[in-house]
Amino acid sequence: MTPAAPSTAPDPPSGQVWAHVGQSFKPRDYDVVVLGAGRMGSAFAFYLRHLAPHLSLLLLEEGGLPNEDGATLLAPGLWTARDVPPARLDEARWTRQQLATAFGDISFQPRPLIELFAEEGTDRINAAEALAPFPDALAMVDVSALPFAQVDTQAATYRPGAVALAAAQSAVRLGADLMLNARAHAVLAPDGTGGTVVTQRLSVTNTHQIIVHETHRLRAGVIVLALGADGPHAAEHELGIHTTHARAYRQTPRLDVPSSDGTPTLRAAGLTLRPQNGGFTLIPAIHHRDPHGYTPTGGHLTGVPTGLRRETLEDLVALMDALPPLGTEALGLGRSLSDIPGAWLALPRGRADGGAGGLPLHQQLTGGVHLLLGGPHADTLGLAVAHDLAAAVAGITGRPWENEGAGT
Amino acid sequence: MTPAAPSTAPDPPSGQVWAHVGQSFKPRDYDVVVLGAGRMGSAFAFYLRHLAPHLSLLLLEEGGLPNEDGATLLAPGLWTARDVPPARLDEARWTRQQLATAFGDISFQPRPLIELFAEEGTDRINAAEALAPFPDALAMVDVSALPFAQVDTQAATYRPGAVALAAAQSAVRLGADLMLNARAHAVLAPDGTGGTVVTQRLSVTNTHQIIVHETHRLRAGVIVLALGADGPHAAEHELGIHTTHARAYRQTPRLDVPSSDGTPTLRAAGLTLRPQNGGFTLIPAIHHRDPHGYTPTGGHLTGVPTGLRRETLEDLVALMDALPPLGTEALGLGRSLSDIPGAWLALPRGRADGGAGGLPLHQQLTGGVHLLLGGPHADTLGLAVAHDLAAAVAGITGRPWENEGAGT
Repeated sequence: MTPAAPSTAPDPPSGQVWAHVGQSFKPRDYDVVVLGAGRMGSAFAFYLRHLAPHLSLLLLEEGGLPNEDGATLLAPGLWTARDVPPARLDEARWTRQQLATAFGDISFQPRPLIELFAEEGTDRINAAEALAPFPDALAMVDVSALPFAQVDTQAATYRPGAVALAAAQSAVRLGADLMLNARAHAVLAPDGTGGTVVTQRLSVTNTHQIIVHETHRLRAGVIVLALGADGPHAAEHELGIHTTHARAYRQTPRLDVPSSDGTPTLRAAGLTLRPQNGGFTLIPAIHHRDPHGYTPTGGHLTGVPTGLRRETLEDLVALMDALPPLGTEALGLGRSLSDIPGAWLALPRGRADGGAGGLPLHQQLTGGVHLLLGGPHADTLGLAVAHDLAAAVAGITGRPWENEGAGT
Repeated sequence: MTPAAPSTAPDPPSGQVWAHVGQSFKPRDYDVVVLGAGRMGSAFAFYLRHLAPHLSLLLLEEGGLPNEDGATLLAPGLWTARDVPPARLDEARWTRQQLATAFGDISFQPRPLIELFAEEGTDRINAAEALAPFPDALAMVDVSALPFAQVDTQAATYRPGAVALAAAQSAVRLGADLMLNARAHAVLAPDGTGGTVVTQRLSVTNTHQIIVHETHRLRAGVIVLALGADGPHAAEHELGIHTTHARAYRQTPRLDVPSSDGTPTLRAAGLTLRPQNGGFTLIPAIHHRDPHGYTPTGGHLTGVPTGLRRETLEDLVALMDALPPLGTEALGLGRSLSDIPGAWLALPRGRADGGAGGLPLHQQLTGGVHLLLGGPHADTLGLAVAHDLAAAVAGITGRPWENEGAGT
């Protein structure tokens, strides 16, 4: 059978792809089943095919493409060592090298990150001098309000969605099976070794209703939940395993100020201004989890409804003096929530800040069932954590970043 | 006219009370109008009558009694210097003295606060020794999980609702007018000196509908918004003044373990166990604001619906090993939100922690209009902040706590 969705050359050992219900599927057992083909699940599948080609692997995705929807697509794609505690720097550097070399064209672009401050501090230099080589960026900042800067010259930007797609395609090329348009949940085996994955193949009716076309039960020795912000919910409601992870809804409004490949990424008071598509994407700070039962809703600015949630709006208002373009029509506030791209982001251990536990992680929920979480720092450390779980499943003890980052 | 609701002796200089719409009200100007007769508004009125008896004053309250509803009634009523930064200790001590002496019977009860820790630290002693004088409290704690303790021997408990009622009654006795069952909002004067208070007198129909009986417009030289968590919302939506304050929904579940007047208050990982009515009231930690648009909702514990919000439930679950009664039927989890008392709490400057700006405060919104906010630390500092605003309105520069707390 020829792979359907990711149109790669059908090399002999290539895995199968089921893109739609017209392609018949004969249930079988798998050594490893991955739920979710976002960047974490796809990267895990990619590395596991490298490290343990003898293990049969199925990657399941609810969307019609790896990463059709969800947090990966809206992730800033900003690699920076600024958020990384020293003990994890080797993994971050290895991730950067992977991004630069392992996934083809993912728009990887070395681009300094200039973080701006109102107060002096260690390693901070004059902001006007830091911005001087970048007149377009300098024009956006009131350097009297933010006179100090810290520069990460090693920072880079890329497209996380492209990483997910390339990783899933490569995994298939290396022998992984991929089923798209498939909703799945895990059922624990009573003996504590993996479990059963119940897979519902979805199709769309003439009236655009999504219906379950057929249901299969697949036995898996290892199950990886790579469902992003939905992972902890699945762990609790499907497996009965309580975790301390949480989630937050992040919106990424657009700032229509011209940018180019040479424009640095800017950051101030937790707000990141990421050059993208000739303008900027704003990545607001995540201050903390959102409560259970919260439904995102637009806010009001001096009585006018906006599509931005109130907390983000407040952060932007507080920065309007220091970053004057935020106070202009260049900022896309929208009129309702649907006007502003947004996604639920997993917060590992309930934390958004890297230093305090909110870094990407994998966690064994029970024998053979693992939770894989990206979250706010997946851009910088996600690949290393996905690789770490793949190596653990493969039974390999060394990690490439322990040898100063020699690749997979 | 005889005061109706707070049944105090009608001394000659006593103010008027309008409890229901049957009592006719003839609009007049006031020097000062206070919106909200919770503990902050009532205390402000009480101190202002002391400090500036020449200023006419009207206290407006939407409920049928001062403090019929709202955060004051559910406040823990725990005075402790533990939460207070050193610069504010004089005010805290003065507040304690006021609580002990100025408001009659408010169930003021000196009672140590014993805070328990898993880790050693400065000023921490052996938990078993700290708890030894209190066998009932000792029996609630697994001291192997929480072996260290810090004791605030000056802590005390009291009933904030009783303070609000006594302060409002005393204010009326000292000449303040009080209107109950009145919804009010402020309209700014164009010249920036106070404004107009639009007052709607409410009554209840035979079918239990609340209707507006009559509307009055009162001119006020000074307006004080003492509306608790609704204050910042009123400032923004009625006056167009944006603030950085926020709010959080706090529930106070019951723990049915016997307590007496001699039982200390316990605290661990931010959870306060406050002896009350022969058992304990649990005061969960407030970790951060709730987002705009959040509607509190009950959580689930291993699939069973509870009346406690998820975040509080998680905190209690995390403490069940260290505080075993939390894992028993003694903890009232309820079945739906309405089973557990809860209220919206103002978070001054959006913060819950005293050291980081979340202390009670007053703030001039515009000429003659002040916002008065209690929040999580109102038990310890609220009276001093209410007094401070009263003294400012009265044009007095000294503060009693500057002379080592000599009373009002």
